[in-house]
Amino acid sequence: MGGDFAPASVVTGALEALREAQGRFSVILVGQRDKIQAEIAKNGELAEHEMVRKHYSIEQAEEVIEMHDSPTAALKSKRNSSIGIGLTLQREKKAHAFVSAGNTGAVMSASTLILGRLKHVGRPTIGALIPTAKSPALLVDAGANVDCRAKHLLEFGLMGSIYVSSMLGKTNPVVGLLNIGEEGSKGNAAAVEAYGLMKESSLNFVGNVEGRDLLKGEVDVIVCDGFVGNVLLKFGESIPAFFKAKVTRIAEQSLRQKLIALLARGTLRGVMKELDYQEHGGVPLLGVNGVSIIGHGRSTPKAIKNMIFRAEETAVRQVPRRIEQAMLHLPE
Amino acid sequence: MGGDFAPASVVTGALEALREAQGRFSVILVGQRDKIQAEIAKNGELAEHEMVRKHYSIEQAEEVIEMHDSPTAALKSKRNSSIGIGLTLQREKKAHAFVSAGNTGAVMSASTLILGRLKHVGRPTIGALIPTAKSPALLVDAGANVDCRAKHLLEFGLMGSIYVSSMLGKTNPVVGLLNIGEEGSKGNAAAVEAYGLMKESSLNFVGNVEGRDLLKGEVDVIVCDGFVGNVLLKFGESIPAFFKAKVTRIAEQSLRQKLIALLARGTLRGVMKELDYQEHGGVPLLGVNGVSIIGHGRSTPKAIKNMIFRAEETAVRQVPRRIEQAMLHLPE
Repeated sequence: MGGDFAPASVVTGALEALREAQGRFSVILVGQRDKIQAEIAKNGELAEHEMVRKHYSIEQAEEVIEMHDSPTAALKSKRNSSIGIGLTLQREKKAHAFVSAGNTGAVMSASTLILGRLKHVGRPTIGALIPTAKSPALLVDAGANVDCRAKHLLEFGLMGSIYVSSMLGKTNPVVGLLNIGEEGSKGNAAAVEAYGLMKESSLNFVGNVEGRDLLKGEVDVIVCDGFVGNVLLKFGESIPAFFKAKVTRIAEQSLRQKLIALLARGTLRGVMKELDYQEHGGVPLLGVNGVSIIGHGRSTPKAIKNMIFRAEETAVRQVPRRIEQAMLHLPE
Repeated sequence: MGGDFAPASVVTGALEALREAQGRFSVILVGQRDKIQAEIAKNGELAEHEMVRKHYSIEQAEEVIEMHDSPTAALKSKRNSSIGIGLTLQREKKAHAFVSAGNTGAVMSASTLILGRLKHVGRPTIGALIPTAKSPALLVDAGANVDCRAKHLLEFGLMGSIYVSSMLGKTNPVVGLLNIGEEGSKGNAAAVEAYGLMKESSLNFVGNVEGRDLLKGEVDVIVCDGFVGNVLLKFGESIPAFFKAKVTRIAEQSLRQKLIALLARGTLRGVMKELDYQEHGGVPLLGVNGVSIIGHGRSTPKAIKNMIFRAEETAVRQVPRRIEQAMLHLPE
């Protein structure tokens, strides 16, 4: 029931994931049964596909936490929300992973509350994959924790490192601390202290990285607090639309410019695609005792489909277990 | 003597500014006389232009604060640096403004130390103009203060507002607080408190703005701490090169793509130009008792020229006096 285009976008994305998965996994659609069934019916042939109809079920959840609801208040008052029931299915081992494009704060709080934190994790975090000149890098924290102490930043680096090595197949990922200068003495109080902690840790810590280094792709895990991460991520997401508007405006100046813009459309679309968050689906919540993937409110069916595949992979690769193992070796 | 291409870039930029200014102002070149004279000689005809040769002088400064020097240590040990002598000329009313592409930290510290802070200003700040879909917006603080309290953020909003109204001719500029959500309850502790202070102030405060809103141009002054501002600014500066590399890579895929890229080059250059920091020259240091403009280390002659024009305008429009007036009305 979550996201701006729910349940249409969620249902279609889930059915498309099932068709592609060829029976590798099943999906439980959690929410208002009648609405979900109506959406399934709209998908016609896709819903009738053998690999689809055999692999989904519906779990009734009467209440819906809306995008504008206060997370903590909603979790208390709406005990039968789709978010709450979906996560409870995972806690009860009836599901291996949870995916939602709903209220981010509510999904984070409910995941921590219902699944619980992994041992030694002070603060669960969300990490977002961002495009770079080389392979994608994980920006962590991407918005879960706005006031962070140095030890939290160290935790983020460790959890991010495990996620990248597990999911992107990078051994010993390069970890950088987002800062305003290269030297260890630069930055705010938390960053200066975190630099010291990370240098002494088992991380493959390369030191500070600056805003201009993010797109270079020299670093696999970029550590920052959730305030900076969220601002940066949302700024980055807005760039393709900004470029598109600028090119459109220039194209309007003359017929020649218009023709050039038409010709170059495919090329530009290729560049934009690499900047598109929909490609990567959602962001993982790391540090909880289970798999919880949070999608953008504006998730399209394609984004939902990618999120489901991401969730499958996170569960199969046992990312939570690996994080728990790694946290054992963290200094107190 | 400041900047990666000094003194060549600085000297050429200054001479070009003089030619364009047609005698409206003079420039004092502060630094090692022999090096400066050698650079002037290289400019041939430009240096011989009547409006140029009549309007510059050289002030000897034996020492140079290098880009990698620690600002505070360098200010103590290098008492005859070009930064120190240049700012002292302004304090002694022998100059109306100071411009440098040198060590940012040293220029900030020396400006505060030598020119002094304006009354009621807790923390001088630097503001950077960023491109938007509409007119440029001022991002303040752009890197001067990394650990900020709410009252500092309020000050930045006020100083930024005065700068934008004085320099861009906007009456009652719209001020937004950079945050991770629209509601006043969102964000880190400093942002939550600053929201309240700004709402109660005389600012034309529109509330929180998110990362995705920056390029829209709905806000004239974007307030944030210098950590976030610096990261964001450097990230933004790196985008044109990232796009260029992506387009080049796509162009290499086929002859057709190569031709399209060649045709579209002018269009793309137009878009990139709007994102280019060189166009705006440097960033002003606000809150000191004088005019101090800090340029990018990689400033080209064009950037230096634009910085000098910006400095002239800041002095003519009496921005420091206006800030001092406005600060009087700030609640304690």
